[in-house]
Amino acid sequence: MRRLGYNVAIVGATGLVGEEIRAILAERDFPVEELKLLASERSAGARLDWRGEEIEVEALTEDSFAEVHIALFSAGGAVSEEYAPIAAETGAVVIDNSSAWRMDPDVPLVVPEVNRHILTGNQPIIANPNCSTIQMVVALKPLHDAWGLKRVVVSTYQAVSGTGREAVDELKAQTRAFLDDNQIEPSVYPHQIAFNIFPHIDDFLESGYSKEEAKMINETRKILDLPDLGVTATSVRVPVISSHGESVNAEFESAVSVAQARAILTRAPGVTIVDDPANNIYPTPLAAAGSNECYIGRVRLDESVANGLNFWVVSDNLRKGAALNAVQIAECLISDDV
Amino acid sequence: MRRLGYNVAIVGATGLVGEEIRAILAERDFPVEELKLLASERSAGARLDWRGEEIEVEALTEDSFAEVHIALFSAGGAVSEEYAPIAAETGAVVIDNSSAWRMDPDVPLVVPEVNRHILTGNQPIIANPNCSTIQMVVALKPLHDAWGLKRVVVSTYQAVSGTGREAVDELKAQTRAFLDDNQIEPSVYPHQIAFNIFPHIDDFLESGYSKEEAKMINETRKILDLPDLGVTATSVRVPVISSHGESVNAEFESAVSVAQARAILTRAPGVTIVDDPANNIYPTPLAAAGSNECYIGRVRLDESVANGLNFWVVSDNLRKGAALNAVQIAECLISDDV
Repeated sequence: MRRLGYNVAIVGATGLVGEEIRAILAERDFPVEELKLLASERSAGARLDWRGEEIEVEALTEDSFAEVHIALFSAGGAVSEEYAPIAAETGAVVIDNSSAWRMDPDVPLVVPEVNRHILTGNQPIIANPNCSTIQMVVALKPLHDAWGLKRVVVSTYQAVSGTGREAVDELKAQTRAFLDDNQIEPSVYPHQIAFNIFPHIDDFLESGYSKEEAKMINETRKILDLPDLGVTATSVRVPVISSHGESVNAEFESAVSVAQARAILTRAPGVTIVDDPANNIYPTPLAAAGSNECYIGRVRLDESVANGLNFWVVSDNLRKGAALNAVQIAECLISDDV
Repeated sequence: MRRLGYNVAIVGATGLVGEEIRAILAERDFPVEELKLLASERSAGARLDWRGEEIEVEALTEDSFAEVHIALFSAGGAVSEEYAPIAAETGAVVIDNSSAWRMDPDVPLVVPEVNRHILTGNQPIIANPNCSTIQMVVALKPLHDAWGLKRVVVSTYQAVSGTGREAVDELKAQTRAFLDDNQIEPSVYPHQIAFNIFPHIDDFLESGYSKEEAKMINETRKILDLPDLGVTATSVRVPVISSHGESVNAEFESAVSVAQARAILTRAPGVTIVDDPANNIYPTPLAAAGSNECYIGRVRLDESVANGLNFWVVSDNLRKGAALNAVQIAECLISDDV
């Protein structure tokens, strides 16, 4: 797919991720010929900025994708299930942020730093992975290439912006109510999130795992093309606005060292090492919010197992965890080598 | 040590843990003959309630321990290092909340539910373990007895009250400043804690681990009397006022099952199972704060390893993690079987 400019549609344009997609397309000077902002009937009519001009948000319909080359979906699984095939049928390439198509064997699940080589240029739908999975595989891939990944145990510290704008509002409102000694009635989450945490992200499965945890397990295997990789995950919501933290414990096939890990990660695309704990330097969500990198710190040997390594990775869940990764996939699609 | 009543001293009586010790002594009707409240020169003169009467806080001196039978220390490592031997020399049994004596081979490190049998009645100083270690070993011990513990990978979500009253105040003040768009100048912590997290608790060691992480590793081995147990830990501060959460991944020698784990933990002392995720039921710090139990939920098989189990444990760090455990040790000392 090579043109001078592309007609791009953002489905879910008024959501937090849709907003970031618009910002990142502009920041990265993506060759947009025409931008189409699509959303639900309820949001239609809103006017949003695109490089200094206002564009009116249109209601998503079956006819929305005429002349669209690239459709970036971020409006939830149900919308993607219904409209991604329609967009693809109409001739657009769909890059989908929802979980609807990720585990479909015919749909590539792509983190450009890890597996852009699986893009053929002929896939009608390309899936963007789960936010917490993306930042973890960006860190694991270069280490896997060096030493052979054997098993991963990850615990997450996930920001509320992953749930959407209403969750950010709920966190702020509950926090203020708590400080003012007013009553708190949870609405978006089942429990108070202000000054609280809970090991509950997305619905729970029969196995006792949450869907979020299952995504981290299954998507990591698919992206790294290691179908039998040992992965286990615990996903926890924390009262942070944006950027997820992850405590990652990884076992490898061959001998590891902290110095080598740092050297490998320093060269790795999309990664910035922030690792000088003695001087209080390590990644935090507050520092990562609004930026594009996966920040890695607290790299240290785990002596409880052969070839074990612990590290801490933080990235903006709306950017690398969603919007940025989707735009990077679009950049791959319009590049010479796909 | 059997008497009708005991002269009890609380060293660090005006701190958050000192306050909880006083509350718990009263709640549990500990046979206190006379209560002595000791603190720094700065806090001396304050008057605190003891069962409806006011007791004046005295400045800690070398002469503070005359006639004291049990001295509960919670005033930091330096105070314990200096004054615990003086108290012991004077004839008191010291139960010490600091890290000063925990790894001393002559000092028992006790969680009553786990290893009260090591109390002889003749030990002058008894160490109370680190808060995050206590709640983890209460959960691990009964599972270890059933299946033989092999390795533990833990990531913590630790409340600010573990740092002390000034950290609770800082979290609240920063949170309000953030909501009001005012500037935030971190003082207790090196980074903003409001709406933020950081993998930094206590100082960092040469190995790259924090002292808190090293405590979890070393103290777990000592308490469980498993000097070669594989343990690795990542300790993270979260903007929660009280109660620590922990994501625990454990490997055992023999085959495990979730049903058996639940049955074992249901019978285990000090443990309450809170585990019905489909109905949004799992432990949270907000629900655990102010209570005495270790709450366990999210019990599930980890299929990435043989005999693996994941669970989530939450407990009030000021109570079971500090004051309650210290008072329970005192209860052991005055019981028939020590």
